[in-house]
Amino acid sequence: MAYFDAASAAPLHPVGRQALLAALDEGWADPARLYREGRRARLLLDAAREAAAEAVECRPDELVFTPSGTRAVHAGIEGALAGRRRVGRHLIVSSVEHSSVLHTAEVHKALGGSVTEVGVDRTGAVAPDAFAGSLRPDTALACLQSANHEVGTVQPVAEVAEACRAAGVPLLVDAAQSLGWGPVAGDWSLLTASAHKWGGPSGVGLLVVRKGVRFAARGPLDERESGRAAGFENIPAVVAAAASLRAVRAEAAEEAVRLRELTERIRTRVPVLVPDVEVTGDPERRLPGIVTFSCLYVDGETVLHELDGAGFSVSSGSSCTSSTLTPSHVLRAMGVLSEGNVRVSLPPGTPAEDVERFLAVLPGVVAGVREKLGAPVPAGAVRGTERGAQESGAPAGDALVVDALGRRCPVPVIELARVIGDVPVGGTVRVLADDEAARLDIPAWCEMRGQEYVGEEPADRGSAYVVRRTS
Amino acid sequence: MAYFDAASAAPLHPVGRQALLAALDEGWADPARLYREGRRARLLLDAAREAAAEAVECRPDELVFTPSGTRAVHAGIEGALAGRRRVGRHLIVSSVEHSSVLHTAEVHKALGGSVTEVGVDRTGAVAPDAFAGSLRPDTALACLQSANHEVGTVQPVAEVAEACRAAGVPLLVDAAQSLGWGPVAGDWSLLTASAHKWGGPSGVGLLVVRKGVRFAARGPLDERESGRAAGFENIPAVVAAAASLRAVRAEAAEEAVRLRELTERIRTRVPVLVPDVEVTGDPERRLPGIVTFSCLYVDGETVLHELDGAGFSVSSGSSCTSSTLTPSHVLRAMGVLSEGNVRVSLPPGTPAEDVERFLAVLPGVVAGVREKLGAPVPAGAVRGTERGAQESGAPAGDALVVDALGRRCPVPVIELARVIGDVPVGGTVRVLADDEAARLDIPAWCEMRGQEYVGEEPADRGSAYVVRRTS
Repeated sequence: MAYFDAASAAPLHPVGRQALLAALDEGWADPARLYREGRRARLLLDAAREAAAEAVECRPDELVFTPSGTRAVHAGIEGALAGRRRVGRHLIVSSVEHSSVLHTAEVHKALGGSVTEVGVDRTGAVAPDAFAGSLRPDTALACLQSANHEVGTVQPVAEVAEACRAAGVPLLVDAAQSLGWGPVAGDWSLLTASAHKWGGPSGVGLLVVRKGVRFAARGPLDERESGRAAGFENIPAVVAAAASLRAVRAEAAEEAVRLRELTERIRTRVPVLVPDVEVTGDPERRLPGIVTFSCLYVDGETVLHELDGAGFSVSSGSSCTSSTLTPSHVLRAMGVLSEGNVRVSLPPGTPAEDVERFLAVLPGVVAGVREKLGAPVPAGAVRGTERGAQESGAPAGDALVVDALGRRCPVPVIELARVIGDVPVGGTVRVLADDEAARLDIPAWCEMRGQEYVGEEPADRGSAYVVRRTS
Repeated sequence: MAYFDAASAAPLHPVGRQALLAALDEGWADPARLYREGRRARLLLDAAREAAAEAVECRPDELVFTPSGTRAVHAGIEGALAGRRRVGRHLIVSSVEHSSVLHTAEVHKALGGSVTEVGVDRTGAVAPDAFAGSLRPDTALACLQSANHEVGTVQPVAEVAEACRAAGVPLLVDAAQSLGWGPVAGDWSLLTASAHKWGGPSGVGLLVVRKGVRFAARGPLDERESGRAAGFENIPAVVAAAASLRAVRAEAAEEAVRLRELTERIRTRVPVLVPDVEVTGDPERRLPGIVTFSCLYVDGETVLHELDGAGFSVSSGSSCTSSTLTPSHVLRAMGVLSEGNVRVSLPPGTPAEDVERFLAVLPGVVAGVREKLGAPVPAGAVRGTERGAQESGAPAGDALVVDALGRRCPVPVIELARVIGDVPVGGTVRVLADDEAARLDIPAWCEMRGQEYVGEEPADRGSAYVVRRTS
């Protein structure tokens, strides 16, 4: 059994568990009360706030505890936008932010605000210049994650923070994926995080608002947590969160080196062991524990199911694993393959043997899924059938049409790969598809296979994706 | 050591604690994931939802878990108002609702909605007729607590629900104080509650929205909890909350009888043991564990401090114990004395000896505070000095003035009590005061002492409260 989805949630750190148990006895009362149980609860809350602030490198009175990272993001963005309402209503986010950020931006837009989504390169990183270029005189707030939750790419926060500071715009950093590894460098203005990502308990988020940042809390008045997080404080969980953060930080330097080596093994060996794989994310500027790759001609849900059966818990940004049947917005923004997507995120303490076992199991799993789906024989499949196509004498210019309407990912790409050998070099093939993932995966397949993606054309149903065979 | 503030928060029930520990191991993963840890978490979440729904007597798909009772109230009221936006923007609340309800109503008002506050009688109960009379064609939502959190009075929810149903208006019931004792009777539409009030952990609230009730969740999109409670589910806490609810319910019938007898002792014996005390709340229609009384000529903060020193943790609605230095809005709405206010709320399991010890300690504590403050000798003090006043020959009609400007509760009332003997029967005294509590406590004192409260007049600073001596 190997749990490889720490980027979703990590089990509670043993130190956090101990702290939780102690605080259940000492910290259940109302910290606003003056009697002994209340005073005890207040002491625990204050101590937890100090410990968390030390880890974030902020002042304790700049930090409040929220019921989750999501709530911290909602409250942080809404409060900062409201605080700078007079300056303007322009919000900047990167296109690969966590959905909680993007959904808050959608609400802002629906209420009449304007939003700029700054794009990313194929590694998932924003360009500091592009980010800086989107700053406007009416920009109320900019948001950039410290590192991406799906591919692990670390963002240039310090550079972006500098540009924001120069423009007088506060920068909110969603540090959910990185806070366990270390404080966020740079001159940011607001920060959010989520305890269950670093081995703390569920039910705790952090919202930090630097002194001097204009902030107007939204929602009904509530005195708790400086008026920034309504509801009775969850002190046992907050205490456990702070204790866990301190504990994982103590182990972070050593564990980062170890996990980075393990994910490096996956990064380098998966493409060797499994044909037709794209490893995504920045190979250098990345989190220690996350590695993500996509496998052509495979559906993510089946791979996840097979890996689960083999004892590995991983997640996927493939469309078939989302309730909306659309591929991950992160992979889409990066323009990389989404089919057969696998995110491995190792919790601290993952034994090397688990990773080795994963590398031993993966090739068979992928091959099995491909076989079931009737995927083309990988590696050189195109070249292998090339002669046949030329021999078939299909008239160049008279485009071949593949009808994959009503078929889900990865079928449209499989069908495309099946026929490309029948297309003469220089000729085109039109893939008709109505699965949302095709829009991302057909261009990504072209990129991987060295074919030319001509473009998308409207069709009676779905779209026609035009591909020119170049080799 | 006796903790008598269960209405604020109860310690975690042992059964809840056990459930929490088990769920920390089994329920930390993301229940939206398909791998085994995710499936296990989902099973726990589903089971907790079913158990909670059974206790509420609703369908599991009508119930979502929120991060607190406060958040359940915010989300419930905002969602119901938004769902019935087309009907109108009129909201009805009772004047003694929890602050989370009243603060949500304030936001609604600030956004252009209209709010009717239905008043209560001296016991703290709304009259069903008055509540029904406030229903209008444009009423979007009505809110009524199941029982009051400060004085324990049970509200006529079933009658009010019937009137609302007849008018086609949904009724939201804040059941925070009563859900541990039993389901809320009547045909309500929405219900909220808070786990740490019934012996569950912090960090869990309930929001129930009956099928067929129009509801439009506010805030950024989030798929969790049917889109009604954003953020990663806190499954260990949710499991503990459901287990605690089931456990306290199993003990509720027996414990209700026992606690009711203990609070009855306090209700009947405190006025005998301590002079000049007003016991508040309905003597019959009340929660088993709550009893509240106010002591003339005493400041609540000092009483709380002295009781804490004697080993009793209680709370108070006196102005001196609130951060805003205003008396509790509940006591104000009831028109009862707020000075020297003490709320005793017994947790299940409170031994009778603790209550007896409290009754033994209280008279000395109150007498000590009164002595320190130089309060008039209680009981018959007015009659005792009556002759002197008549002998002084102060001209009737030429009102005596007491200057209590800048003095905090209970000093204005003490000063009034000191001089009333100097006022001829039929004459008046004007008390100048700028402490907010005087507005409530001077009329309440008149009621208790059988004097006539004439009214409040504007003054250069604060107000002049005019009292006529009648006996």
